[in-house]
Amino acid sequence: EGRAAALAAGWLCCGALAVAACGGPALREVLSPFAALLHRGAAGRGGEPGCRPACPCPLPSGDTALSRLVRRLLSARRSLDLCLFCFSCPQLGRAVQLLHRRGVRVRLVTDAQYMGLHGSQIGRLRHAGIQVRHDQHSGYMHHKFAIVDQRTLITGSLNWTSQAIQSNRENVLVVEDAEYVKAFQDEFERIWEEYNPANYSFFSQRQNE
Amino acid sequence: EGRAAALAAGWLCCGALAVAACGGPALREVLSPFAALLHRGAAGRGGEPGCRPACPCPLPSGDTALSRLVRRLLSARRSLDLCLFCFSCPQLGRAVQLLHRRGVRVRLVTDAQYMGLHGSQIGRLRHAGIQVRHDQHSGYMHHKFAIVDQRTLITGSLNWTSQAIQSNRENVLVVEDAEYVKAFQDEFERIWEEYNPANYSFFSQRQNE
Repeated sequence: EGRAAALAAGWLCCGALAVAACGGPALREVLSPFAALLHRGAAGRGGEPGCRPACPCPLPSGDTALSRLVRRLLSARRSLDLCLFCFSCPQLGRAVQLLHRRGVRVRLVTDAQYMGLHGSQIGRLRHAGIQVRHDQHSGYMHHKFAIVDQRTLITGSLNWTSQAIQSNRENVLVVEDAEYVKAFQDEFERIWEEYNPANYSFFSQRQNE
Repeated sequence: EGRAAALAAGWLCCGALAVAACGGPALREVLSPFAALLHRGAAGRGGEPGCRPACPCPLPSGDTALSRLVRRLLSARRSLDLCLFCFSCPQLGRAVQLLHRRGVRVRLVTDAQYMGLHGSQIGRLRHAGIQVRHDQHSGYMHHKFAIVDQRTLITGSLNWTSQAIQSNRENVLVVEDAEYVKAFQDEFERIWEEYNPANYSFFSQRQNE
């Protein structure tokens, strides 16, 4: 059966790294569970700056799931396409803004009903000049994926919120297989165009298409 | 770079199939977006039994994302391990009960705060004799994955609810790469043991571990 030749899969808890298999450049990676160890009453444990909501440093460091996610994002050189149900994590917001300032083309699609909630990063990102589009229907735009340089797909159960990162049991896959990336990139372009404000159709003119 | 030899990736809307690449046995598949076409005012379109909440047939049929997901589940011969934040979709509930009646070993982990909500399938599944465990902490058990026969991983953004299947923009990956499956299987076994009622620790005796 066809299997990837080079693969790195690791389960990563905040502050605890367990690599299941490593070989060559990391084609794939599993960042998860986010913060699982925190569930076990680990109050007071140090060395997890990425998990502290009031962290004084601008970006998470160390070997947490969050810091590894941020490093994946910061590896972008040309483009970052984000398709996120909700986005309130300040550290991830800072990373995205940093990329924008570096000249990386950032595009963000999000859910209309969640983008305005308290703590959302969407307003800040728009204010910083980042292109944002949102859905226009009653269902949720429930994807939670990012594509770095049209080459690396980051997807999973994780909403980009501090609550999810700090408290939930989550999984995040990092995938560089071209077929996977293409499928999600195609979906991103489809959504990006569908949510173009120029195409808004509030009274469903499209019903007869 | 290492890439899978045989791969099938398809974006599947309710009632509309677009296969991106096909070759040999489907090692991987992308079922998504769920119900995206419904957003475009497709009221009255027929041929989508899997998308009708009041469908008279017990299981979805045709070529919808839901029917393909159900077929993946029904392919189980030995085991089905479910790790689901919430579970209210009746069609998926029926499929899981059918597998249980066939003698497939079904185990289900879910979130304590969502399992009792109106419309949840958890009570029915327990009543049918299926083993269910749930988390015991304030954060969410937010995974949404299934593992068929310890060989096929089904994971993504999709919660197993009718709302998500009918109305949301979602993605579901079907993966048979052994390393991926193992990572999720290991996570399942870890959670299954952690949520064993015999191991409940309401007063966090584990803090000093």
